[in-house]
Amino acid sequence: MEEEARKETLFRTKIDREGESYDEFLDSLRMEIQNQTNSHLKKMLEGAHPADIATLFRELETEESLYLFRLLPSEEQSYTLIKMEDEDLQKFLEELSIEEISRTIEFNETDETTYLLSYLTPEKRDQVLSRLNKTDSFEIRSQLGFRESSAGRLMSKDFATAKLGDNVRKGIINLRKKAKEIEDIYQIYITDEDGVLKGFIPLKTLFLTPINTKIVKITNYSVYSFHYDTDQEEVANSFKKYDLVSAAVVDDLGRIIGRITLDDVLEIVEEEASEDILRMAGVSEDERLATPILQSVKRRIIWLNVNLFTAFISSTVVAYFEDTIARIVVLATLMPIVAGLGGNAGTQSVTVVTRNIATGDLTFSNWWDAVHKEVIIGCINGLVLGTITGTMIYFVKGNMVLGFVVGSAMLVNMLVASLIGSLVPILLKAVRIDPAIASSIFVTASTDVCGFFFFLGLATLLAEYLV
Amino acid sequence: MEEEARKETLFRTKIDREGESYDEFLDSLRMEIQNQTNSHLKKMLEGAHPADIATLFRELETEESLYLFRLLPSEEQSYTLIKMEDEDLQKFLEELSIEEISRTIEFNETDETTYLLSYLTPEKRDQVLSRLNKTDSFEIRSQLGFRESSAGRLMSKDFATAKLGDNVRKGIINLRKKAKEIEDIYQIYITDEDGVLKGFIPLKTLFLTPINTKIVKITNYSVYSFHYDTDQEEVANSFKKYDLVSAAVVDDLGRIIGRITLDDVLEIVEEEASEDILRMAGVSEDERLATPILQSVKRRIIWLNVNLFTAFISSTVVAYFEDTIARIVVLATLMPIVAGLGGNAGTQSVTVVTRNIATGDLTFSNWWDAVHKEVIIGCINGLVLGTITGTMIYFVKGNMVLGFVVGSAMLVNMLVASLIGSLVPILLKAVRIDPAIASSIFVTASTDVCGFFFFLGLATLLAEYLV
Repeated sequence: MEEEARKETLFRTKIDREGESYDEFLDSLRMEIQNQTNSHLKKMLEGAHPADIATLFRELETEESLYLFRLLPSEEQSYTLIKMEDEDLQKFLEELSIEEISRTIEFNETDETTYLLSYLTPEKRDQVLSRLNKTDSFEIRSQLGFRESSAGRLMSKDFATAKLGDNVRKGIINLRKKAKEIEDIYQIYITDEDGVLKGFIPLKTLFLTPINTKIVKITNYSVYSFHYDTDQEEVANSFKKYDLVSAAVVDDLGRIIGRITLDDVLEIVEEEASEDILRMAGVSEDERLATPILQSVKRRIIWLNVNLFTAFISSTVVAYFEDTIARIVVLATLMPIVAGLGGNAGTQSVTVVTRNIATGDLTFSNWWDAVHKEVIIGCINGLVLGTITGTMIYFVKGNMVLGFVVGSAMLVNMLVASLIGSLVPILLKAVRIDPAIASSIFVTASTDVCGFFFFLGLATLLAEYLV
Repeated sequence: MEEEARKETLFRTKIDREGESYDEFLDSLRMEIQNQTNSHLKKMLEGAHPADIATLFRELETEESLYLFRLLPSEEQSYTLIKMEDEDLQKFLEELSIEEISRTIEFNETDETTYLLSYLTPEKRDQVLSRLNKTDSFEIRSQLGFRESSAGRLMSKDFATAKLGDNVRKGIINLRKKAKEIEDIYQIYITDEDGVLKGFIPLKTLFLTPINTKIVKITNYSVYSFHYDTDQEEVANSFKKYDLVSAAVVDDLGRIIGRITLDDVLEIVEEEASEDILRMAGVSEDERLATPILQSVKRRIIWLNVNLFTAFISSTVVAYFEDTIARIVVLATLMPIVAGLGGNAGTQSVTVVTRNIATGDLTFSNWWDAVHKEVIIGCINGLVLGTITGTMIYFVKGNMVLGFVVGSAMLVNMLVASLIGSLVPILLKAVRIDPAIASSIFVTASTDVCGFFFFLGLATLLAEYLV
């Protein structure tokens, strides 16, 4: 086994993208695939961790990847599928036969199988399920019935339990039975006679307690559980808040039906954060470096078209004041300052508020605090920056009224920016739309429109002092 | 103990911000603090999880929080400090005496103590350290010596080991010794005679193997370890990639000096993602809902001032073409379309590239692929949107040359946006600046300048056809 570990390290240096021999390794891999020299290929992949193989697949064509994939032992195949990027996985599952998929998923835990099957077409899924043994098939079908992104989908059905009336010996026996299936056991869950979750015992405690001790005596009743329909973001926030390592999932009667572990949650935290960042800019939340260009273009261009529409609106506002601009051309040079700063201030507000919603700090009970705070910040920023800008323009252009017009337009626009920047994500959340969705496009659109309107409107009113 | 669990649930409903009685609970808490009726207060806090208390503190004044804090048992105090927001913690540690701090941190693991002490002034830290027993003090001092955000800072020094030559019995004895100190044990680490890390044994395996078995026979050599100076982002990426639950930290000779667990990593993943989102918008990465307004203003206004400076540059570009605008006022109304769409396309590029850098997908070996991809996307988007916009303007304004000017300026600007949007984060990363830092401000600044320049420049060249 020490040999195994050495091979793993060796393989990792070969596929280190920063390393010198990386391109070389990739080239010879491609050549051996073309020559179909399976023995060489198997040797080249020796010691490869499934996660590394999945990474490697991102660099290869689908056919090349599939060729390599079919050389792997079934157990490694299943884990490699789990570690693949969404798009690669999709392509793979289309290409793999029902037999190949069924053989592979035998080695997965139920949550992983459910995850993989959710990528199949309903017909293919049914065919795969009918090949599994009845218990597995039933369990996976019932798990597929839970809402996407809910605790029920996330949980694994592999966990060990004992009853309050049992003793430690019975608990250890139960655990031994499960031990082979369950990758990481941290605790066993304790239920009453009806399976209703009552508490848990950490593995450590179970093993360090004399085996005739009654379970009820060492049970920790502060057990964390989630209803199967709980949203995964809420699950993740509880894990973070209470430093959980695993938690139970229960049905409507409080009976334990699964468990969620910290590693499932890690993925959610990463996913939700990435989603937020990407969506705010109007990029697909699935966009990765490996995403095909046309797919990237498709989603991005939707939002740019929305942006084109909003840009036409602000353009119309400016057009409305064409006469004023014709008389006082300097206004055209100052327009971008008012609109641009409003846009950036609004983006700051929208970012902070969206982030606070995602982390659970901002709820429907304290939304007013957040808006209130943003508006005050907008007011202070507007006063400071409006004064600086107004003064500078007075000195440069020698016209105090012009300075006043720019400065006060900036103040008003920053107030609007902070108000809209904080309200938009809260309103989106209220109507159950992801608050991050392209919100910056909407906010810059409103600051453009308002900025131009206040600035050019005020300038028109005071036009006689500006020429 | 079942009673305890019931109290905990009860307390949690009381402090549920969505709940009806929340404000009531808060009001009566404030009143009891004023009346200093400690017995009532202790009853009110019964069953409160430290994380919930820390949340509660965000709603109270520092004096009120401190009053409640001093009513807690020392063990709960220490955990509450850990769960507090940075700013609350800072204020608390300023107010607490050396004695209080020393008494509290006795209950923490070394990584937690190190974390807390890093918030103290050097003098206060020394005073606290001198009150600890010599071993603890030495360990914490050495850990404080590691680079911030490195694996060494992150690790806990509480872990169990056994030697390759031992048998399982010895391993279990070692574990028992440590079991009280260590909250979550998942595995014991196996070393050679010199303490050099060789492998690990999962807790499950250790307990399910006959006690006379040699450790060497059941050791798993595929152990993950990090050098103490490894950056925490790299640690987090490995945990995610290889689904780790814990990993060892080693010194220069490969000897194990600590362990990092998944829950430490969860915090980093959350933190780094939040940092990226907030920094991209030019907001402090520490900004929370509870951050005092003036502190929020301070950091945000710095970036808005940078933005003001860049806005003046684009304003100067526009001013350069004042004569053209005076002759053809419609240009002023179309300017925002060219600049705005470039800005948003650039923000999309910068977001995707920054995210890919953070997740480790983009490295110095494949940066060119990323830039290349963004530029192609920029080209396609520019062609599509430029054509749409140009055609629309031709129909609305009846001037084909005007449509051509707008369309081609948009194409050029989108190319520039994608090039700068992808290069800026990569260059920042190369000079070791966080690529997320206010990058959208720089990108929109360049798209403004380029957009105005190309659009108005081309319009000036073709002015005779535009009037």
